[in-house]
Amino acid sequence: MIGATTPQLTSAQAAMLAELAPVLGPKGIVTDAATIAPWLQDWRKRWQGASPAILTPANTAEVAAIVAAAARHRVPLVAQGGNSSMVGGATPPADGSALILSLRRLDRIRSIDAEAGLSVVEAGVVLQTFNDAALTVGRRFPLTLGARGSATIGGLVSTNAGGTQVLRFGTMRGLVAGVEAVLADGSIYDGLAALKKDNRGYDLDHLLVGAEGTLGIVTAATLRLAPAVAARGVAWAGVSDPQTALALLRSFQRDTDTIESFEIMPAATLDAALAHVSGSRAPLQGRHRWHLLIEATAATDDAEAPAAMLERLLGAALAGGLVEDATIAVSEAQAEAFWRLRDSLSDAERARGPAVQFDIAVPVATMPAFMQQAASAAEHRFPGTDASGFGHLGDGNIHFHVRAPEGVDRDRWYAEDAPVITRFVHDLVDAAGGTISAEHGIGQMKRDELARIASPARMMALMAIKQAMDPLGILNPGKLLAPPARGQ
Amino acid sequence: MIGATTPQLTSAQAAMLAELAPVLGPKGIVTDAATIAPWLQDWRKRWQGASPAILTPANTAEVAAIVAAAARHRVPLVAQGGNSSMVGGATPPADGSALILSLRRLDRIRSIDAEAGLSVVEAGVVLQTFNDAALTVGRRFPLTLGARGSATIGGLVSTNAGGTQVLRFGTMRGLVAGVEAVLADGSIYDGLAALKKDNRGYDLDHLLVGAEGTLGIVTAATLRLAPAVAARGVAWAGVSDPQTALALLRSFQRDTDTIESFEIMPAATLDAALAHVSGSRAPLQGRHRWHLLIEATAATDDAEAPAAMLERLLGAALAGGLVEDATIAVSEAQAEAFWRLRDSLSDAERARGPAVQFDIAVPVATMPAFMQQAASAAEHRFPGTDASGFGHLGDGNIHFHVRAPEGVDRDRWYAEDAPVITRFVHDLVDAAGGTISAEHGIGQMKRDELARIASPARMMALMAIKQAMDPLGILNPGKLLAPPARGQ
Repeated sequence: MIGATTPQLTSAQAAMLAELAPVLGPKGIVTDAATIAPWLQDWRKRWQGASPAILTPANTAEVAAIVAAAARHRVPLVAQGGNSSMVGGATPPADGSALILSLRRLDRIRSIDAEAGLSVVEAGVVLQTFNDAALTVGRRFPLTLGARGSATIGGLVSTNAGGTQVLRFGTMRGLVAGVEAVLADGSIYDGLAALKKDNRGYDLDHLLVGAEGTLGIVTAATLRLAPAVAARGVAWAGVSDPQTALALLRSFQRDTDTIESFEIMPAATLDAALAHVSGSRAPLQGRHRWHLLIEATAATDDAEAPAAMLERLLGAALAGGLVEDATIAVSEAQAEAFWRLRDSLSDAERARGPAVQFDIAVPVATMPAFMQQAASAAEHRFPGTDASGFGHLGDGNIHFHVRAPEGVDRDRWYAEDAPVITRFVHDLVDAAGGTISAEHGIGQMKRDELARIASPARMMALMAIKQAMDPLGILNPGKLLAPPARGQ
Repeated sequence: MIGATTPQLTSAQAAMLAELAPVLGPKGIVTDAATIAPWLQDWRKRWQGASPAILTPANTAEVAAIVAAAARHRVPLVAQGGNSSMVGGATPPADGSALILSLRRLDRIRSIDAEAGLSVVEAGVVLQTFNDAALTVGRRFPLTLGARGSATIGGLVSTNAGGTQVLRFGTMRGLVAGVEAVLADGSIYDGLAALKKDNRGYDLDHLLVGAEGTLGIVTAATLRLAPAVAARGVAWAGVSDPQTALALLRSFQRDTDTIESFEIMPAATLDAALAHVSGSRAPLQGRHRWHLLIEATAATDDAEAPAAMLERLLGAALAGGLVEDATIAVSEAQAEAFWRLRDSLSDAERARGPAVQFDIAVPVATMPAFMQQAASAAEHRFPGTDASGFGHLGDGNIHFHVRAPEGVDRDRWYAEDAPVITRFVHDLVDAAGGTISAEHGIGQMKRDELARIASPARMMALMAIKQAMDPLGILNPGKLLAPPARGQ
């Protein structure tokens, strides 16, 4: 099967590779089908692409040479880091027309300045590696997510990644102080100088963050570091509903700015996680309709200990009736156990059976009502389904799932019902002033829904910018935006 | 003279106005020369433009009608708010080809949500008005600058304004949660929903922030509010050099994140301010080569009082030899007196005689060395000049002045020497990895220098984006970028 999906090189691709061979050397061009195969499919195995070669440049100059050659030969490139896209953003097209441009060999941390809190990191550095490197200089990089062992800095920048610390530190966009990228003609844009103020025209760094490799190839970024954590407190609380949960968060935020995570889940989702994680225990003894995982940190030992602070705040909330019950992790092991439950929610939910999953955001203040109204509306419109959301309440971002009726034919349901449900929920999100992609991006999965829902003004601007920055259409074609019709 | 600079309407302009008259009503079109005159020149009287009419729409729909008509008739528009640009960004071209689009009647604060810390504000709202409105709901908008009584939100967004609180809160870009704008075809882009996470393609909000009205007309913005200030501490310190000043700031920042301002000035600049502000007194008794104005704030009464904290930190710095002397303002009146000195530096410097003034930034860590090396280099290269910088050390942003030799012919010096000095200093900034515009923008003043210094990759991207978003070239033509040569 691997052989069957490996296309022959087109003449343009062959000419391009011949030109690049002396530049890239033997390590720089991979054409072995078995080596290529794992990179032709996304990790959730939803999209299968094809490509005759992977290009693996060692530095920015080699990336520039590749893009310049691709432009000359009109050969599309699909940039790839850890291949952990949730939306098929790094899977090449199935027709074999594109070559994969792997950034994984650009794996140097060029500099790390603890005093200034800045580090220049190449695109291929794995998130976990960078997290660890920051700790060794007494700092931390305050972004983490499930795929931290494979996701790379280039991919995280190009998808404006989120995670569980966005509440305090923002998404990747807020942590990027500058970008280095190869533009579609092979020229190198150097925005790495970390200037706190820079009004030299349109912000190209922000334009490249979240562009999913369709406007340029991010080769490095200057990233902001935060003070290392001296202590953390992790709490679990039971509340009656999302409205109360948000009121609790607001009351905390009036008192402190050290809340890093504020994650919400309904009882059934927690039950699924408890069933899924062997040896796990429910953090609270009684039954509660909604559960919260809360983390606060302190950067210095002088500050109020985060666990004591959470105890004080939750004590007041218990007395005031905002929470039904709460507990503070008494050890790092217990804190880790709480987080293991949270981190297993996606897998646990998947184990519950077929479901359509959404990564959506609405304004924070309206999220509690949206969660309940959207669930009711979906269950009413699609009888037998079971809908609920969990996730980053403080960011107005939840992962909303509509589970299939019991006993349904899985394949038929995915093929026929799921698309209808998708459009229905997206319309609800749009009506609430929200976004159909909070943190996963558009890729190929949400491309047509974006085009269906976005305002004409937004779509025209996106397409005009794509055409301006990549007039030949060689950068990750078909992702985020459909290619222009021929003749345009 | 006013009559002489008021051009006749071109036939395209006349047709456009005839079409718009019923839409805008009598208040919406101003053709009286005396009323127009003040808006044809920048406030520093460096650029004189000409225009036969000012359009003053009352709402976003009217702005959209104006831009659509301008596109149909190919009539350029120059957006204007408070007309407080430092770089001629809001002055129409001298040939009378453009109409002024004044946003001042879009002056509503559409909503203000203290709990969420968000406010939707129209482009024509004056900064001071908005500062005051935030205070009435127990919040504050943490951006202020000298022109706060005239600068408007639309202009502040479009120029990514800075000021003296950037150290803690960032520039306008960091305070903008979303933008509403009319694009070049008259369509309305609505990005006002304040989503903490939104990965729906290229970030159009960030693209419009700082675009100086060349990509779209910002009609409103969703702005972030900060907690109101419960108490502030203001200190003045004398130090030996900028390196020590930065070391002092870093030591403070290891202890606290409440430092909002950290302004530096050399002794001669302070002397000029003392001479300029009647009744002012030197904050410290002895002589010091460099002076610092430092402000810290607290949002709650529970927190350590900022004045006491500054006293503690400065006491330790005195003991450690980082500062030579320091004093804490003992009253609001004294704090205001310190700030009055700081706010008068620009005027005081102007009173010292002819000078070329620069608004530049380099990476924070390199600013101390840059300040001294650039001053030495300029004085050596241009004998008789006197060069120094003052301003936002913690942002890596100073206002750097090269004063003319004594007794020089003012007009000749500005005409012949100033351009050479400008290029010399800009080259130093560029070599240091800095920017020739930290907070003032490009406008017409720095347009050709941007084109001279910026990398080909940056310039090509800027021009491609401009062409994509404003293909007819009707939005603030000639600002930021030169219009494309005819035939392109």
